[in-house]
Amino acid sequence: MQREDVTDLIVLQKIKKKLTWTQLAEVIGHSKEWSTAALLGQMTLTEAQAKAIGAALDLPEEAIALLQVTPYKGSLPTAVPTDPLIYRFYELISVYGTTFKALIHEEFGDGIMSAIDFNMDLTREPDPKGDRVRIVMSGKFLPYKTY
Amino acid sequence: MQREDVTDLIVLQKIKKKLTWTQLAEVIGHSKEWSTAALLGQMTLTEAQAKAIGAALDLPEEAIALLQVTPYKGSLPTAVPTDPLIYRFYELISVYGTTFKALIHEEFGDGIMSAIDFNMDLTREPDPKGDRVRIVMSGKFLPYKTY
Amino acid sequence: MQREDVTDLIVLQKIKKKLTWTQLAEVIGHSKEWSTAALLGQMTLTEAQAKAIGAALDLPEEAIALLQVTPYKGSLPTAVPTDPLIYRFYELISVYGTTFKALIHEEFGDGIMSAIDFNMDLTREPDPKGDRVRIVMSGKFLPYKTY
Amino acid sequence: MQREDVTDLIVLQKIKKKLTWTQLAEVIGHSKEWSTAALLGQMTLTEAQAKAIGAALDLPEEAIALLQVTPYKGSLPTAVPTDPLIYRFYELISVYGTTFKALIHEEFGDGIMSAIDFNMDLTREPDPKGDRVRIVMSGKFLPYKTY
Amino acid sequence: MQREDVTDLIVLQKIKKKLTWTQLAEVIGHSKEWSTAALLGQMTLTEAQAKAIGAALDLPEEAIALLQVTPYKGSLPTAVPTDPLIYRFYELISVYGTTFKALIHEEFGDGIMSAIDFNMDLTREPDPKGDRVRIVMSGKFLPYKTY
Amino acid sequence: MQREDVTDLIVLQKIKKKLTWTQLAEVIGHSKEWSTAALLGQMTLTEAQAKAIGAALDLPEEAIALLQVTPYKGSLPTAVPTDPLIYRFYELISVYGTTFKALIHEEFGDGIMSAIDFNMDLTREPDPKGDRVRIVMSGKFLPYKTY
Amino acid sequence: MQREDVTDLIVLQKIKKKLTWTQLAEVIGHSKEWSTAALLGQMTLTEAQAKAIGAALDLPEEAIALLQVTPYKGSLPTAVPTDPLIYRFYELISVYGTTFKALIHEEFGDGIMSAIDFNMDLTREPDPKGDRVRIVMSGKFLPYKTY
Amino acid sequence: MQREDVTDLIVLQKIKKKLTWTQLAEVIGHSKEWSTAALLGQMTLTEAQAKAIGAALDLPEEAIALLQVTPYKGSLPTAVPTDPLIYRFYELISVYGTTFKALIHEEFGDGIMSAIDFNMDLTREPDPKGDRVRIVMSGKFLPYKTY
Amino acid sequence: MQREDVTDLIVLQKIKKKLTWTQLAEVIGHSKEWSTAALLGQMTLTEAQAKAIGAALDLPEEAIALLQVTPYKGSLPTAVPTDPLIYRFYELISVYGTTFKALIHEEFGDGIMSAIDFNMDLTREPDPKGDRVRIVMSGKFLPYKTY
Amino acid sequence: MQREDVTDLIVLQKIKKKLTWTQLAEVIGHSKEWSTAALLGQMTLTEAQAKAIGAALDLPEEAIALLQVTPYKGSLPTAVPTDPLIYRFYELISVYGTTFKALIHEEFGDGIMSAIDFNMDLTREPDPKGDRVRIVMSGKFLPYKTY
Repeated sequence: MQREDVTDLIVLQKIKKKLTWTQLAEVIGHSKEWSTAALLGQMTLTEAQAKAIGAALDLPEEAIALLQVTPYKGSLPTAVPTDPLIYRFYELISVYGTTFKALIHEEFGDGIMSAIDFNMDLTREPDPKGDRVRIVMSGKFLPYKTY
Repeated sequence: MQREDVTDLIVLQKIKKKLTWTQLAEVIGHSKEWSTAALLGQMTLTEAQAKAIGAALDLPEEAIALLQVTPYKGSLPTAVPTDPLIYRFYELISVYGTTFKALIHEEFGDGIMSAIDFNMDLTREPDPKGDRVRIVMSGKFLPYKTY
Repeated sequence: MQREDVTDLIVLQKIKKKLTWTQLAEVIGHSKEWSTAALLGQMTLTEAQAKAIGAALDLPEEAIALLQVTPYKGSLPTAVPTDPLIYRFYELISVYGTTFKALIHEEFGDGIMSAIDFNMDLTREPDPKGDRVRIVMSGKFLPYKTY
Repeated sequence: MQREDVTDLIVLQKIKKKLTWTQLAEVIGHSKEWSTAALLGQMTLTEAQAKAIGAALDLPEEAIALLQVTPYKGSLPTAVPTDPLIYRFYELISVYGTTFKALIHEEFGDGIMSAIDFNMDLTREPDPKGDRVRIVMSGKFLPYKTY
Repeated sequence: MQREDVTDLIVLQKIKKKLTWTQLAEVIGHSKEWSTAALLGQMTLTEAQAKAIGAALDLPEEAIALLQVTPYKGSLPTAVPTDPLIYRFYELISVYGTTFKALIHEEFGDGIMSAIDFNMDLTREPDPKGDRVRIVMSGKFLPYKTY
Repeated sequence: MQREDVTDLIVLQKIKKKLTWTQLAEVIGHSKEWSTAALLGQMTLTEAQAKAIGAALDLPEEAIALLQVTPYKGSLPTAVPTDPLIYRFYELISVYGTTFKALIHEEFGDGIMSAIDFNMDLTREPDPKGDRVRIVMSGKFLPYKTY
Repeated sequence: MQREDVTDLIVLQKIKKKLTWTQLAEVIGHSKEWSTAALLGQMTLTEAQAKAIGAALDLPEEAIALLQVTPYKGSLPTAVPTDPLIYRFYELISVYGTTFKALIHEEFGDGIMSAIDFNMDLTREPDPKGDRVRIVMSGKFLPYKTY
Repeated sequence: MQREDVTDLIVLQKIKKKLTWTQLAEVIGHSKEWSTAALLGQMTLTEAQAKAIGAALDLPEEAIALLQVTPYKGSLPTAVPTDPLIYRFYELISVYGTTFKALIHEEFGDGIMSAIDFNMDLTREPDPKGDRVRIVMSGKFLPYKTY
Repeated sequence: MQREDVTDLIVLQKIKKKLTWTQLAEVIGHSKEWSTAALLGQMTLTEAQAKAIGAALDLPEEAIALLQVTPYKGSLPTAVPTDPLIYRFYELISVYGTTFKALIHEEFGDGIMSAIDFNMDLTREPDPKGDRVRIVMSGKFLPYKTY
Repeated sequence: MQREDVTDLIVLQKIKKKLTWTQLAEVIGHSKEWSTAALLGQMTLTEAQAKAIGAALDLPEEAIALLQVTPYKGSLPTAVPTDPLIYRFYELISVYGTTFKALIHEEFGDGIMSAIDFNMDLTREPDPKGDRVRIVMSGKFLPYKTY
């Protein structure tokens, strides 16, 4: 059993038990964004979180153990994602990549927005012309160290 | 002269004239996010906008004409970006890609967040532990049509 | 069992039961184009549709459950398809890609043809010099939002 | 001067002279789809067509000569297109590729839809919920020869 | 069981039964070139042909069924083949590709040699300096349709 | 000036002087297949051949010198060719690659068909259903040496 | 003039003036590691630093301006570097990549070593069996934020 | 059983037995850096070391045998690593690659830092602003031989 | 069972029986270079050789049969090898590729060194400064045929 | 002027002055193998060598300066070489890669053959069945350091 097998098992058990990602996030005790990423093999659970999820989803001991090991991250099978929903995010980087760079450097100087000291919130934005997906990302600005 | 040459010229003239992207956005009359993307060859200017920018940056006639032509979009030289600032956004998709997918489908059903009927806002988020980059993205949810 | 295994199973059961894609589409209650895409792992079935297909093809419970989960889309094993029938469509984009772009922008301005709010119809076009494949595609034009 | 330089020149002269692709197609005497593809370096003009276009766009002799040479086809700079409008067509093949294959084989047997004995028509489809792009493709079915 | 498994099984059974591709082609009733391609998963057998091969090679029912389904074509694991015998053919295209193009266009005008309405014959050409492989390819010329 | 520039120059001068590849082959004194490949930068001319071509096409001294240098071979800009005429040859290898391998090994044992001690002949094959391109390839079989 | 042209110019002027990277670092006032990276287009100089380098290397005004703009980072022409010296570093990541991961997670938990809040020192390590290259890297550990 | 299966088994047994890489390194008798790399399939153990590890982790005989065979090295599934911790090292090479090259050549002349006659040490560097990862690499300089 | 499985089995049995490649070559009756390549799936054994190896390594009948089938050659999992020992050979081609070409053409004219009519010998070259690997390659020169 | 321009200039001047690589090697005072590699941009010349070559080939001062700078190595435009002569060497690694690995490890243990402390000799090997290219490679064996 490897970490990917645990992910497959989680997805299947979640369907069978008719649980939502939001409900599983409550079991973990963190936001739905962080928790879903963790369950999909991108974050590391504590022993207590892993056991709680194991109980909620009837996972075997080995799976519970693997949930506590830092996974090899990267959730996509190809460098350019084929799934349309995920591709749109890739497209935003393709189209706006140099814009992100220009505006962050203009505001902060040389450095990056951290993808580690990072959090985000994904919500439904009601709109009469059709509801919208609203994502708020917040990452610490890290200036390039000079030395 | 091709559209990329116009971009190079814009960047150079902007430096010489010590203008900011925010100031150029005011010339265009749209947000700094959309305007910078347009100047970097990803959006299309109206004739009035192109002339205003041409005047602000001393661009030749040919450049002003090309700014009104819809460009071949995609601002990055490689499929996986090498620039660290831009790569962090790619990494977010790599790490959170399946999470975006899971949560948007849970909330909205099968479909995507539009990257066309889309807007965003990039601001500085003051924080005692180090200021943060805050990006608010809003894209219309488009459900897959069944037929 | 993963979604790909369900697709393999569907293809095999369809052969054994000598059913056509058109017949399966009738079971689902949508066009043959949308229904075939759904069965091949690109669209999401409702519970009723999944059960009807499960009954028609003797699928196990787990498969019926997976048919109701939005799949990770993308039906091709390589970025440039090797199958000659599918390659011809890729070639059309390679040859006509910039033409699509030029003509749609000329008619509609900057924006795209939606691949989500999209439908198509594939029929036989009788022709004395050899029958033809006729495909009618219709996608909503989405203008780039300015902001 | 190479064929790509002729394309660049055509695009620039077309802007300066404020001509549309549809108008240029009338000069050539074919549909806007075939004519635009030809001008963008994907089809071959006759001597008369090349001279007419040369006159309409003030092209030099060398360009008029090159328009009559069959070009090395392929209009896109990367295997997976980055431009959002063109990508949506690529996505349709990615999502519907195996569906095209299944349905054409079901209707016609083993073979392909020709991309050579092919024509298409791109029009605006008025729709109260937003106008649509309508593309009708027609390609001769070519059965695999057995021998 | 998928089509690739059928190919593996055919290769193994052929070794065990000490049959040649030429003998199997006689069972199918077509040339050795077409028949071998079919057995290697690139062409579609009729029910009668599939049953005859099934009998000759002791294949299970499921394999016989799959032989009648049009396969996803493409017999090579990588875009540039590593096997030296197959690579030499790739090299011929790499070296002579633009020559094929120049000479066919010179003789026939713009169009292609069909790979569908195509046949070939591979024979031994006795030669005192070392026997040669002789391959005669014949493909219908398809002119680009203008419209 | 590099070898590619000589190729561009040859193509342009050939158009201006309205010469065919067959006529240029007569100047060189070899088949149209070998000669065209040589002019397109894939084979090496002797001093006499280079001078004759130089005279026929008004090439400068430097170009005549470069025609006598063995070129870096490979005539295609991408590993998988985008041009439809050339792609069909690539497709033949993709579809028939393992068939070539099976049949040549069956007839000759382990080894390859040489792409160096190789010649070919491309002709028009009249056919009432549409003329065909006929290509006869002949390459020496080279058995793998055991040692 | 683009940033890459400035890099080429710096390399050439440095040769002509027989200056070392260490001497140029003294002009900049930072370590030789940071300074060389900056001159090779990977870091951003202040106005004073840019002017000092401009004076030392006789750079034109435009180059001095560009040295103050944050560059698009990434110094290598291919994803897998071909230069043997640089490849050895790539090889270290290939061989030791999972080791870095295992040991840093064991010591620090889930997170990364920053490549932004980072410094390094490259020195000669005398050794009787052959001098060694000694590189000390120091990057801030950034723990994954949970939220 | 292949070498990768041994790696998977080692990782799983290590979790179950709650052992650290550092403890396993003590079993092997080398540094934690070399030992972890060896256990992760990048170095070769002696018979004594393999048996000791086998005893510590309850590995089967076959696994112990495979630990003594030099493995096919390379620990990453993709050329550009997706895991953020490992990617940062790749980024360092991307950003600092030409700097490494410039400074090592300036100090040592043409040659490389060996990745074979190489050792490294990874430690925690306490820092009031946040602890740091400190890596000391030492590789023998190998000058290019002239001959 | 496929040819790769036979290779895996050979490697495992060789370890268990503590045999060397040189000893296995003696069983085959050819050089260690050719024999090892054959056992690793790159050359074809005769029936007698296959049976002898089968006896030496306790291989099943099916494996012995597969050893007599010409394999699909290419022993490496990636186009650019990750294993450091094998990479060094790739690097030699990267660095010396154009040198091989220049010197062979200078000595022999246009043509290639055969990789089929080829043999090599790999030995230890004692050297007081450290023993060396000595590889003597010998391939027949094949001149390009003109026609 | 960059290093590649110097290579182009060297090749052109060499043709004009009808010099051989062997003669140029005598000017440099090293073997034809090392010297050709150096002139083709893969090794570094001393000041005296660069000046001697500059005089022999009438190179400008700037070129002579650049010949003394260690170049960014790698002489091939693509990862898999298209030129048939160079490809054969790539094919040898593809076919014999795992054989090199097996035999060197068997003889020397874990380590590599150096491509830096390396020399080679390329000669004509007369043979009544056709002369052969003989290449003797000698590289120092470097054992993996344990620590």
